[in-house]
Amino acid sequence: MQKRLGWKGAAVSLLVGLGLVTSATAGENLKDVMKRRGLNQKDLLAAAKTYVPTGKRDEFIAFSSAGQWGGVIVYGIPSMRILKYISVFQAESWQGYGYDDESKRILFGEGQRKEGATITWGDTHHPALSETNGDYDGRWMFINDKANPRIAVIDLHDFETKQIVVNPHFKSEHGGAFVSTNTDYIIETAQYPAPFEAEYVPLEQFNERYRGGITYWSFDKKAGRINKSKSFSVELPPYTQDISDFGKKASEGWSFTNSFCSERYTGGFEDGRPPFEAGCSANDTDMLHVINWKKATKLFKAGKAKMVNGMAMLSMKTMVENNALFLIPEPKSPHGVDVTPDGKHIIVSGKLDTHVSVYSFEKIQKAIKSGNFAGKDDYGIPIIDMKVALHGQLSVGLGPLHTQMGSGDGEVFTSLYVDSMVARWNYKTLKILDKVPVSYNIGHLMTMHGDTVNPRGKYLVALNKLAIDRFNPVGPLHPQNHQLIDINNSKMNVLYDMPIPLGEPHLAVAIDAKLLKPHVRYRLGTDSRTGKRSKFRTRPGREETIRTCDTSGHCTVEVFGTLIRSHINPEKIEATVGDTVIIHLTNLERAQDETHGFTVDLMNVHASVEPGKTASVTFTADREGVFPYYCTEFCSALHLEMEGYLLIKPKGAGKTFASTKELTPEEQVKFKKSYEGKLKTIAGTNDVINSVVKAITEMGYAKDPRTKALMDDALDQLKKIPGVEAKMKAAVQKQDWKNAADWAEMIWQYQVKTADIGLRIKMILEEKAKQ
Amino acid sequence: MQKRLGWKGAAVSLLVGLGLVTSATAGENLKDVMKRRGLNQKDLLAAAKTYVPTGKRDEFIAFSSAGQWGGVIVYGIPSMRILKYISVFQAESWQGYGYDDESKRILFGEGQRKEGATITWGDTHHPALSETNGDYDGRWMFINDKANPRIAVIDLHDFETKQIVVNPHFKSEHGGAFVSTNTDYIIETAQYPAPFEAEYVPLEQFNERYRGGITYWSFDKKAGRINKSKSFSVELPPYTQDISDFGKKASEGWSFTNSFCSERYTGGFEDGRPPFEAGCSANDTDMLHVINWKKATKLFKAGKAKMVNGMAMLSMKTMVENNALFLIPEPKSPHGVDVTPDGKHIIVSGKLDTHVSVYSFEKIQKAIKSGNFAGKDDYGIPIIDMKVALHGQLSVGLGPLHTQMGSGDGEVFTSLYVDSMVARWNYKTLKILDKVPVSYNIGHLMTMHGDTVNPRGKYLVALNKLAIDRFNPVGPLHPQNHQLIDINNSKMNVLYDMPIPLGEPHLAVAIDAKLLKPHVRYRLGTDSRTGKRSKFRTRPGREETIRTCDTSGHCTVEVFGTLIRSHINPEKIEATVGDTVIIHLTNLERAQDETHGFTVDLMNVHASVEPGKTASVTFTADREGVFPYYCTEFCSALHLEMEGYLLIKPKGAGKTFASTKELTPEEQVKFKKSYEGKLKTIAGTNDVINSVVKAITEMGYAKDPRTKALMDDALDQLKKIPGVEAKMKAAVQKQDWKNAADWAEMIWQYQVKTADIGLRIKMILEEKAKQ
Repeated sequence: MQKRLGWKGAAVSLLVGLGLVTSATAGENLKDVMKRRGLNQKDLLAAAKTYVPTGKRDEFIAFSSAGQWGGVIVYGIPSMRILKYISVFQAESWQGYGYDDESKRILFGEGQRKEGATITWGDTHHPALSETNGDYDGRWMFINDKANPRIAVIDLHDFETKQIVVNPHFKSEHGGAFVSTNTDYIIETAQYPAPFEAEYVPLEQFNERYRGGITYWSFDKKAGRINKSKSFSVELPPYTQDISDFGKKASEGWSFTNSFCSERYTGGFEDGRPPFEAGCSANDTDMLHVINWKKATKLFKAGKAKMVNGMAMLSMKTMVENNALFLIPEPKSPHGVDVTPDGKHIIVSGKLDTHVSVYSFEKIQKAIKSGNFAGKDDYGIPIIDMKVALHGQLSVGLGPLHTQMGSGDGEVFTSLYVDSMVARWNYKTLKILDKVPVSYNIGHLMTMHGDTVNPRGKYLVALNKLAIDRFNPVGPLHPQNHQLIDINNSKMNVLYDMPIPLGEPHLAVAIDAKLLKPHVRYRLGTDSRTGKRSKFRTRPGREETIRTCDTSGHCTVEVFGTLIRSHINPEKIEATVGDTVIIHLTNLERAQDETHGFTVDLMNVHASVEPGKTASVTFTADREGVFPYYCTEFCSALHLEMEGYLLIKPKGAGKTFASTKELTPEEQVKFKKSYEGKLKTIAGTNDVINSVVKAITEMGYAKDPRTKALMDDALDQLKKIPGVEAKMKAAVQKQDWKNAADWAEMIWQYQVKTADIGLRIKMILEEKAKQ
Repeated sequence: MQKRLGWKGAAVSLLVGLGLVTSATAGENLKDVMKRRGLNQKDLLAAAKTYVPTGKRDEFIAFSSAGQWGGVIVYGIPSMRILKYISVFQAESWQGYGYDDESKRILFGEGQRKEGATITWGDTHHPALSETNGDYDGRWMFINDKANPRIAVIDLHDFETKQIVVNPHFKSEHGGAFVSTNTDYIIETAQYPAPFEAEYVPLEQFNERYRGGITYWSFDKKAGRINKSKSFSVELPPYTQDISDFGKKASEGWSFTNSFCSERYTGGFEDGRPPFEAGCSANDTDMLHVINWKKATKLFKAGKAKMVNGMAMLSMKTMVENNALFLIPEPKSPHGVDVTPDGKHIIVSGKLDTHVSVYSFEKIQKAIKSGNFAGKDDYGIPIIDMKVALHGQLSVGLGPLHTQMGSGDGEVFTSLYVDSMVARWNYKTLKILDKVPVSYNIGHLMTMHGDTVNPRGKYLVALNKLAIDRFNPVGPLHPQNHQLIDINNSKMNVLYDMPIPLGEPHLAVAIDAKLLKPHVRYRLGTDSRTGKRSKFRTRPGREETIRTCDTSGHCTVEVFGTLIRSHINPEKIEATVGDTVIIHLTNLERAQDETHGFTVDLMNVHASVEPGKTASVTFTADREGVFPYYCTEFCSALHLEMEGYLLIKPKGAGKTFASTKELTPEEQVKFKKSYEGKLKTIAGTNDVINSVVKAITEMGYAKDPRTKALMDDALDQLKKIPGVEAKMKAAVQKQDWKNAADWAEMIWQYQVKTADIGLRIKMILEEKAKQ
């Protein structure tokens, strides 16, 4: 009925006709479209400034915390299209994170405290990009978990989480992650004070036993891992520490951490006392912590730290005695502390004040050297006089929070939460330059490389906390609104409203896209979480299933399998009730984007296996039955056929795999005919392939690395044919027409895969020719 | 040092100056921008067709499966901005889904099989919108889990998952969800055949004991829930059933399900046999199942079904005896089966064939009535002759998969996987109208209302499986690429490439945005998962904490608390090691987008509490210590101060909450001065508020429902002041200057919240005035 050789006709007509069908004949002109859609000239300009045509690239890549989702959001600027959600503290099945053995070792191994509930989520706040000489180097990323104090390391070669370290000192944190100018250290700061000990301490002893603190995590840039034994914390008073920033250039070696609730209020609204929000903001000033961290590392290395919960801690006393810790008053419940690119100034915003306060590092140093302090706090820490340390203050508006740096001399941008505005001002001259309203209630803001020694200007993103009426409604829980603002001109302009569909971002950081060099595949057999070759990697032809039993009688079925378009090897796995089943899978593909997924129905395991990766899943064969397994990623035309069966037998059942049934003479005739038909199809398809190859060779596929790589993949498919052909011929030899027909079918399928890729190459070359 | 009354000056200058700072003075003109960004006229037209300015709405809302992420992606068309990820089968902390008690009852209660591993993810494939008379009504959505056969119900009033039902018959599925024209039934179809029983059956008995099937879930549209006792399955042969579609209009009462691997091949590549991909596609045709489901419901209601695993099933025998089940050959490994808007034709695409096959429902009925069949399959099901049933076939290209309907007479669109193209053709005349290349390897495609009786045309989205080189690289795991295509004109044009950052979508459906009526708040005290008032709802002033112990000595601490800008009531919770802690929280807000989140550090619980919602978290106080809790959603300027402490005492410790310490006379003087200063600030801020109110009143805030609702919220804030003022005065009476100052601070904070909203109102009115 259907014509298999139609393949030939269809493909050939396509070859000659493609140019015709893709030529654009727009039905509406620009004026019509603007009228129909109610766009004005300003809208059109914003559209032109943000639209990225198919196949083109964004200029900057932003990494945003996803808040309570527990991961990182990656998006392009100026298109504001989200490219990836990276799982960090939350199990996430698409990436197999927390569902395959390799990632479980991170999320449920090192990333967990030993005591208490297993934590399956996190509250991420502040991403930080690794730096070399104070500017982003595109290599690593770090992010914190506010709810369960932890810091994670993400590799920007594959956008995967590689490490989670637990902070053993804090019960709460917020101010992480911030990196030093060469990524030697990463800051994580406590938030709500608590005893360091895992014990009950009544709130009456808040001043005596509750503590804040700051952890300096030591990062090994070459290994790409935090080294806990080289890391240490500094004990701080039970003020509620918040955001930090490292010094740079002029202030290299120092770090700055602000705080709120220096009132040390302990709440009790339910008992008739004012609530935390009132008691924690009663004073007009809080405390900026000024720390000589280079000296602190020396004290740590000199053995001045004591071990608390298995990790080093420097006491306030030691820090004060060694002139490494100071305080400066800062206006009312500050939220952001930001060091200028030259490191000479520190900008603080008190969210319940209208001013930004610019502190001079030089003046701070002078005060320290003179030893002329305004006094000490209750914990003996010297307090530098605010007036002495200030370069100046500027009233910028209501609810100033955070500051990011522009590319102009002294140019900075501050978010105004209550005003719902961004203020552009000059921290040197203390003058307001411009303001722009945002929708609504901006928290953090981000400029390009905006916290480095070399801010790039160009764009600003307002990370607005409320969207309210900005988007089509999607129920009581609204998206956040990231607004892209053009800062190229003297007047700022909102270009684009971007809804955040999952999670509540806090800080984001943006890097020049050219500085990122992500990989497209792994070296064959890589455990991506360690970055090393997996000991479970399996080469094609070496697949095997081994069942071993220990002396207690417990047995383990271990599968060393492979994945490739479009089959899983093995296609059957046998186990007995009670067995542990471990399935290791290596994706044999080399082609970009040829990911395979793997799950076994009803066993709650899942792996995302990108080209070259080896991933494993482990589960208990907890009941007898038949459990299909399949490739979960639509990888090829035969994707749905990429399946297999796990058969779990009751104890004592024998090996009962299917054997081939004898075919009847009528069936033999039918299959022989089918085999012969397939041979004809193969010959026809071969002609199609040859014509496509001829076309793309003439179009010069070999000159473009993209199409060259695709051609390698196409040839990989063709190279599989001789092996299958040998099997087909062996079946023919035995007059086994059923298998001969199936092997012939498989040859044809490799041809289809080849043609598929060939047509893709052709499309890319045609697109290129049009440009 | 800082000037609190600067507030007044800043706000007033803002009032007069806002117009100035927002006036747009574009630095570059359109031509400059196009040149700089390398855009051509076609790009600009596409930008103008897709750009949605701030505050404007998208025309259609798409609901896409998120594949292995286990949920649904909601995005706007034509802007292609993702508005929300809805958690369905996967625990997701941002929405508190699987982290609060109410959602745990769905995900870990009814949504779980009784036996085996707890399932914490799903593989969603096909979303379906509820219909009335064959068109979308905007009320409910359904989606399936391929990995662990289940169907979920989502409410489009709040975009939350309300129900998950487990399919007790299947071990694997794929072809769900599809709804009947009035949403009486939802189809879920088995995929990889397996025994219905939860027992081991060797593959030798595949033909005899392995089965496929189709479940018709009965949906109670008023209650918004699937009724399992009114639902039933139909036993089918062990072909690998795939996609289904319900008949409509002419074919009302019938449904159509296709299949692949009708070869009933059982694999064994590891044993030298051809792999599934070859053995499952050896034949040139598979089997389209034609089912009279109206008759099946009658058979079910007449008691003809038997109970299998606790749910009704109609046997093939019963179905055949009652003329309710037929087969028609369909070309090679089909993937899509789609009924035309008038219900008269059924379009099938064989993915390894170049043709689409158009079957005539009238011809099928004629064949059935005549009783003139081509034969029966091995299970006794009558086979209708393909030639007799066909309206016709058309060679459309390589790898045709799915078809969606256009608004023109006979106009349809078919995805071509291998060609990486969309074909527009006419199913009546069997002529190709147009083709457009897509990047790359399209799976499903979607037109607006494209599977209803009233397709709207306008846009088409190509759900491409591979992105390869389309976006900035983000590692070996690529996003998918949803391409928006303009189908308004005779030539199709790609308008926009949209990366999918999380999950691998399969099908998507799009509804006219005007048909959706989502809520922005819940009735106070609602359990959103049941839709009913929560028995744990708490009104302001009625907060309490109750500890009760049972006869075994186990104690439970139950908190009935509230959330409002910016405090949690209570601010302290006491428990003893071993206690069960249950915290119920009601969000007292009425304002749109005023969500509060809640977590207790290190206890692995999280709730997203939207305005009016009551949510609960339960955990064990498993160790002594101090555990901060806090609001996880940045809700207001004092968000970080929205905190509290859980104190877990060792057994036997007494109640040791803090009492207020006596203040020294010096402290009394300091606090009295602070109190007096705050009174001045309050008076100054009052002037600011009055000036803002005057401005927005003159601008006519009361006439716009958006600003009217915001003003209600602003007044809500002000109304809280008299109560706090009374507390302040009582403290003054007692010369308790510390608390007097804190209460005064709180009055000011309510003023700040009022001003915050007032400024937002002003911004909206100014935006409106400019239009």
